Amino acid sequence: MAEAVDGCVRHGLEAIGLWRQDVAAQGLGETIELVRNAGLRVSSLCRGGFLTAPGFEEDNRRAIDEAAALEAACLVMVVGGLPGVVPGEPLGTISRDLTAARNHVEDALTLLAPYAAERGVRLALEPLHPMYCADRAVLSTLGQALDLAAPYAPETVGVVVDTFHVWWDPQVFGQIERAGAEGRIASYQVCDFLSPLPADVLLGRGMMGDGVIDFGKLTDAVAAAGYTGDIEVEIFNADVWAADPDEVVTTMKARYGTLIEGA
Amino acid sequence: MAEAVDGCVRHGLEAIGLWRQDVAAQGLGETIELVRNAGLRVSSLCRGGFLTAPGFEEDNRRAIDEAAALEAACLVMVVGGLPGVVPGEPLGTISRDLTAARNHVEDALTLLAPYAAERGVRLALEPLHPMYCADRAVLSTLGQALDLAAPYAPETVGVVVDTFHVWWDPQVFGQIERAGAEGRIASYQVCDFLSPLPADVLLGRGMMGDGVIDFGKLTDAVAAAGYTGDIEVEIFNADVWAADPDEVVTTMKARYGTLIEGA
Repeated sequence: MAEAVDGCVRHGLEAIGLWRQDVAAQGLGETIELVRNAGLRVSSLCRGGFLTAPGFEEDNRRAIDEAAALEAACLVMVVGGLPGVVPGEPLGTISRDLTAARNHVEDALTLLAPYAAERGVRLALEPLHPMYCADRAVLSTLGQALDLAAPYAPETVGVVVDTFHVWWDPQVFGQIERAGAEGRIASYQVCDFLSPLPADVLLGRGMMGDGVIDFGKLTDAVAAAGYTGDIEVEIFNADVWAADPDEVVTTMKARYGTLIEGA
Repeated sequence: MAEAVDGCVRHGLEAIGLWRQDVAAQGLGETIELVRNAGLRVSSLCRGGFLTAPGFEEDNRRAIDEAAALEAACLVMVVGGLPGVVPGEPLGTISRDLTAARNHVEDALTLLAPYAAERGVRLALEPLHPMYCADRAVLSTLGQALDLAAPYAPETVGVVVDTFHVWWDPQVFGQIERAGAEGRIASYQVCDFLSPLPADVLLGRGMMGDGVIDFGKLTDAVAAAGYTGDIEVEIFNADVWAADPDEVVTTMKARYGTLIEGA
């Protein structure tokens, strides 16, 4: 955590997206101190969710409390897959009732949204690429996320627009416009979609420019929809993780300048 | 080809879906003779498409001619990915303009549909799972396929409903109903979606029951939509391909009986 915060400061980044396990490893209090002393905004806390797993309620209340303490702009919600499906594990006893799983997510939000609202935390529903529907998120499109958010105030339940997850969607531009009109874009996340995908599809993300995504059109659409918050670069990629952090940030800033800011 | 046809006959299957490269290897005339003598229907010829590649028009006219000669119920169209993206190959010079690629597919159909109509061939637009959007098909949802088919007569341009490709879609049941109402279901294909996916996602298909799909609901929806044609089992899976063909068909028939017919 200290290294990441220091890297942001040295490279002139103004905000950081935090992951709960890293916050826990550092300690919540120390993390708050680190980011405050560095003058960083917390663009998001990742992640609440997995609402289709047993015990989801207690864990998500803790995540909401942490997001409140960190003054994170939002708590990213990865809602979970089919009940019983464990990412990366062979299938055991599972439920194949996708409609029921989606209804369960809807019900779970009725429990969590009021708790988040009381603490001033914004839940950010993240539709994941359909290839993760079984094991990580039964929420697969931006339109579906907006339908799910509809009963709540936009400052309590928003959505994440992540280029990796939504670039393929024939309805994406209309739904980005809708998300803006409804005031629900809680985070804009960018990374590229690699082709071919690597053996572990979770790590199929690349530095902007290394894959197939047209960042100009999506970034223009998000800007036209009125989003003025932080743009988060989120890359799950074994090579990026293994590389020198300063080189990664240097490349990231260069690509960001060309492909996102220059869009 | 002879082995496949013989296997169908011995196991009491009444129809076979053919692939163009196998037809070419056997010879078109001999293939026609084999399937006619066996009394098999040709449920589909796979595949035309790759409309975003150079030279698509000539190749697709040939595919239409072959489908006509085989009296195939339809010619499955896998429309192709982003221009320049080659499945399985590192990215070279590509176009990232997905909207343009989709518009190009729409334009290509205006060339091919009249040719197909003259020969009595039904083009069957197949939406592919969004994880193949870059390299195999910019057609990603059933709704998008129906929009693309809309200008043409249903007997000239239909759609494929393939469980593997559409199971995750929040709009799938509405779009299956629409496809039925518009008379456009040209083929219903079944296979399972494996979790976790194998290293090569193209081969992420499994025997029905080995993955995460609820076949009952989808099969009921397709039946309720009025589809009475052949149901095709199409499994790209290295283990299935390596197994004894008679065992594969025996397992397939058992699973089909339980999960599809028994739905």
